[in-house]
Amino acid sequence: MEDSAPRRSRAAFAGLVGVSQVLGLASVVLTGVWMGHFRGGFAWNGSKQEFNIHPLCMVLGLVFLQGDAILVYRVFHKEPKKNVKLLHGIIHLLALIMSIVGFVAVFDYHRAAKIPDMYSLHSWCGMTTLILFCLQWVMGLMFFLFPVASAWLRASYLPVHVFCGLALLVMSVGTSLLGITETLLFNIMPTYSKFTPEGVLANVLGILLVCFGLVLGHLMTREEYRRPPNPEEEALSVHFKTLTDGGSPTTP
Amino acid sequence: MEDSAPRRSRAAFAGLVGVSQVLGLASVVLTGVWMGHFRGGFAWNGSKQEFNIHPLCMVLGLVFLQGDAILVYRVFHKEPKKNVKLLHGIIHLLALIMSIVGFVAVFDYHRAAKIPDMYSLHSWCGMTTLILFCLQWVMGLMFFLFPVASAWLRASYLPVHVFCGLALLVMSVGTSLLGITETLLFNIMPTYSKFTPEGVLANVLGILLVCFGLVLGHLMTREEYRRPPNPEEEALSVHFKTLTDGGSPTTP
Repeated sequence: MEDSAPRRSRAAFAGLVGVSQVLGLASVVLTGVWMGHFRGGFAWNGSKQEFNIHPLCMVLGLVFLQGDAILVYRVFHKEPKKNVKLLHGIIHLLALIMSIVGFVAVFDYHRAAKIPDMYSLHSWCGMTTLILFCLQWVMGLMFFLFPVASAWLRASYLPVHVFCGLALLVMSVGTSLLGITETLLFNIMPTYSKFTPEGVLANVLGILLVCFGLVLGHLMTREEYRRPPNPEEEALSVHFKTLTDGGSPTTP
Repeated sequence: MEDSAPRRSRAAFAGLVGVSQVLGLASVVLTGVWMGHFRGGFAWNGSKQEFNIHPLCMVLGLVFLQGDAILVYRVFHKEPKKNVKLLHGIIHLLALIMSIVGFVAVFDYHRAAKIPDMYSLHSWCGMTTLILFCLQWVMGLMFFLFPVASAWLRASYLPVHVFCGLALLVMSVGTSLLGITETLLFNIMPTYSKFTPEGVLANVLGILLVCFGLVLGHLMTREEYRRPPNPEEEALSVHFKTLTDGGSPTTP
């Protein structure tokens, strides 16, 4: 009977992970419907249809995939850490590729339509987020997958990496919301205040993204959902520089 | 020599608190300059000048004051907890009053200018944030200042209260950014892409708000900045329902 509290906690965790996936997938689908149905679909030809690839890639890459990459440590808490770490890096790589495609799409569209770049708050936040995301990915690779840093350095960097990961997810959600508002005001400003289907759909998308961020934030900060530390695994794991360095990093 | 690490940590903490205050105050001042200089100043007469009160109150109340109210636990870590708790509640009350004035200003302006309410993503996010902020304040009052809940209930609710507080601050920053984008596109859409002073100033304001949120987030989640638990204080403090309830809440 004494393990009923952890079991309840695992059930709550599983339920919330399910909710997060529904929210994340619904956000991607809604972005697709918005761009596909209301904004004229997708194409890679310098037209507005090329712009439409941008929101879809960003929501899929920088929000959904980034969120799931963060989540794997807590979802696969019984898998060997080395495998989970690899999965974390691979999903982040997919997120990075998707984001770069999204960035190229919008810059290419701007070039063709002779629209200036990087003047809006959305673009400032988006560019900052992508640059920091790249930096975070490279730093993560160097510190945790390749044996570059000492155990002490890895242990010191880990809380920074974890905080920056969550901060980048929040910044991605916030930047997406700015993008939604920009797109609506550029395209349907005269009818937005009349609660047109496109405006309501885009607002709902924004709320879903906020909820996705909140659920992920809760799952990632709640102490009882944390992957339990396993000193034996830490000592045996091949991803550490040496076995005698001491001061093994804690687990995200 | 052995306490040099905590001393370094306290120095870093003090430095970051200073940075947060500069960022927060600069955000308030920049909002004032934007509304006062570029948008025609302030008045309570149903005109656009009444609208201008809205951004100033929201940045001052829901961002700066809310952030500082959260911070007091870690800044005044040597003061008796009862006093800090009272200060936390009072600054939150000021934030709440300021936010309500800001909300009344925008609804009053909309009524006078016959602009529909609650159609934009900014308004949806803002209303959700304010309602949850009120709820959080009332719950905090009942659980932690008045002896309504049992010690066990308080201990269970505390992590939820802490998480929701930080989430509400992030939502307030995000909603402010949406408000900045809306205000710019409603007023200077044709010139925004030409990097006009008003557009750049408002973008800088957005970046300052993001930085304020990031520094606050770091200060609030870093384990070493946490107020050290003091069992004696917990047992003696008058803000607990009984002295024998057991299971004293941990400290935010």
